[in-house]
Amino acid sequence: MTDYLGEAVARTATNGQGPTAAAGFRAAGVTAGLKASGRPDLALIVNDGPRHAGAAVFTTNRVVGNPVLWSRQVVSDGTIRAVVLNSGGANVSTGPEGFQDTHATAERVAGGLGIGAGDVVVCSTGLIGERLPIEKLLAGVDDAISKLHHDGGRDAAQAIMTTDTVVKVAQVSVNTAEGKFTVGGMAKGAGMLAPALATMLCVITTDADIAAEALDRTLRAATSVTFDRVDSDGCMSTSDTVVLLASGAAGVTPAEDAFLDAVRTVCASLARQLVADAEGASHDIAVHVEGASDEDAAVAVARSVTRSNLFKAAIFGNDPNWGRVLAQAGTVPTEVAPFEADNIDVSINGVMVCRGSRPYEERGKVDMAAARDVHVTVDLHAGDANATIWTNDLTHAYVEENSAYST
Amino acid sequence: MTDYLGEAVARTATNGQGPTAAAGFRAAGVTAGLKASGRPDLALIVNDGPRHAGAAVFTTNRVVGNPVLWSRQVVSDGTIRAVVLNSGGANVSTGPEGFQDTHATAERVAGGLGIGAGDVVVCSTGLIGERLPIEKLLAGVDDAISKLHHDGGRDAAQAIMTTDTVVKVAQVSVNTAEGKFTVGGMAKGAGMLAPALATMLCVITTDADIAAEALDRTLRAATSVTFDRVDSDGCMSTSDTVVLLASGAAGVTPAEDAFLDAVRTVCASLARQLVADAEGASHDIAVHVEGASDEDAAVAVARSVTRSNLFKAAIFGNDPNWGRVLAQAGTVPTEVAPFEADNIDVSINGVMVCRGSRPYEERGKVDMAAARDVHVTVDLHAGDANATIWTNDLTHAYVEENSAYST
Repeated sequence: MTDYLGEAVARTATNGQGPTAAAGFRAAGVTAGLKASGRPDLALIVNDGPRHAGAAVFTTNRVVGNPVLWSRQVVSDGTIRAVVLNSGGANVSTGPEGFQDTHATAERVAGGLGIGAGDVVVCSTGLIGERLPIEKLLAGVDDAISKLHHDGGRDAAQAIMTTDTVVKVAQVSVNTAEGKFTVGGMAKGAGMLAPALATMLCVITTDADIAAEALDRTLRAATSVTFDRVDSDGCMSTSDTVVLLASGAAGVTPAEDAFLDAVRTVCASLARQLVADAEGASHDIAVHVEGASDEDAAVAVARSVTRSNLFKAAIFGNDPNWGRVLAQAGTVPTEVAPFEADNIDVSINGVMVCRGSRPYEERGKVDMAAARDVHVTVDLHAGDANATIWTNDLTHAYVEENSAYST
Repeated sequence: MTDYLGEAVARTATNGQGPTAAAGFRAAGVTAGLKASGRPDLALIVNDGPRHAGAAVFTTNRVVGNPVLWSRQVVSDGTIRAVVLNSGGANVSTGPEGFQDTHATAERVAGGLGIGAGDVVVCSTGLIGERLPIEKLLAGVDDAISKLHHDGGRDAAQAIMTTDTVVKVAQVSVNTAEGKFTVGGMAKGAGMLAPALATMLCVITTDADIAAEALDRTLRAATSVTFDRVDSDGCMSTSDTVVLLASGAAGVTPAEDAFLDAVRTVCASLARQLVADAEGASHDIAVHVEGASDEDAAVAVARSVTRSNLFKAAIFGNDPNWGRVLAQAGTVPTEVAPFEADNIDVSINGVMVCRGSRPYEERGKVDMAAARDVHVTVDLHAGDANATIWTNDLTHAYVEENSAYST
């Protein structure tokens, strides 16, 4: 069962410095005054090298923020020397003036660090359709530069929080025949988790010595089975960005599979933390689909279940409503996921409540009230492939938080 | 603007006998004891002819109820003489024994009426995965037969209600050069509205003299722009059924477009009533997409918006959050709906809050608290096609009702 999110919990440390756990990085998190709450809202992460390799993946939404438009260009040459991130405003649907704000932010970072603006990734998160208070933001950049520190990763992680209730960092160190290297990272995002990327900002760093092409391959392989397997409410953001930076400061070039394993584990840990902190959720739900004809089929069925408001509301009510699981599986076209509709098994928290698409064990045996995590397993009896998608239940608090966001 | 749902309100009577408004039909609604509440739960509609033509469309879910499996066969020869419907149990995922229950129900109706079981459509609605109390159901069939009446349409409509709070019937009478004919109907469904059919049971009758092939064409054309344009929560039921019966008792064969207009209007009225009674909703939302390259593109963008929990929660909060509209439009692939992401207009209740994908009129001008209906118009500036999808807001009551359904 390749449920990297489920496995990652035991494999990563989440109480460290995240993006500055790896050598060669400094970070800061400051209060620029972008948020009405007066909380920290501007983060900066700098790669001091000797290598300055970078890769990134972005939302596949056609409506994207100005920071995404800018940063796509920055990453195209494989060199990233700094990432500046702000909460308090997404800078989406703000027109050419908004793009100028992003450009000015990158220039300010570059001027302060003595690097080129074309090597500065910019990320913004917050409400759509409002200009950022650019003077405050630029002053915040100066402040952040003055506070850059090798132990600044946690401050940076705090400054990118929006509706997040906890800081999200993760790190792993790996000893290989070539030597020791570390991968660390931070993420924000507590709503709108959806594929193709869970909606969020995420910066991952490593002191391994990896070229940009390999970074890009690794990042895409890692996100496809971690952030892409998280789906809180089916909505896709306009600003999702995951950046991977390599400083080479450890002087170690691990085998690519060992490096992938480490990056994937950090991504999985951060994705799992996003689920655990999703807006207003009372349950984290892992939908495992097994017996699928191939992995895409397993993902399609699992995703269909995790997108059902009826299923998610039932889980909120601690109701093991397997009929809603079957009904969602049945909406996936045969050409996507071949299976026999009358031969599906469903287990909830280990109790097989449905076998051969009919009632089996007594649903009263299922205990969902005892733990936050709920495990739903769907066996399609159509092959050997499996996949797991994580989501949350649909709760009163979700409705409350998302109906009151901008008013 | 081809918003048949919006137009239907003024064109249909909803206080009449619905399925028995047309000549040649009798109906009854009785209490068989299938529901714990003790409310009416069994309906019967009989076509007394002289013609016994019928057509039906069913859910496209691969997981379907035993009544759908049975009724697909019944309708294949174009002859339907009776429709028996029960609430209090869906008879889905109940295995071969459940299919026998459906068969026995049809046989009982046929025996009582002196017709063939192969001409009896069966529909069931309620919880998945539980056998029906068949003896009670069969006794209810006998009772219903004894109570069949030319004014029984409203009783029948009441007996198919589940979480519906009001009876849903509609009827129109049309004078044509060929003479007068009537189309009437009833529907149930107050949750799980989704395409390809809004989840529900619906029986439409006419005393026009129409052959089965034309009925089938008409029904598909009518449902595709009415029930298929309603999407309450994106979930697709296992039991959706819409039946159209023609008795020929008026002795009139109208032109096909006049007949289509009447059937479409009745479907639109019933679909609009379903939206108005959706579980726990506080707003009915019409998402009109115009300026699309073709109708499919308009439908795809409108449907994407109506499926966004974030958008629906914002409407519940009376928040004209156009950013969430843009973000959903952006998730539709270019090959499905070509448009420029930076040139979208959004109006909410007549106020253009977004023009050229940027803020325009002050969002504070939008009044959503005054009325239940909310009208969102999205202009893609990519062509001349348009479409409207109706949905509801996401509310605390929706979560409550759907988390407590089966426990």
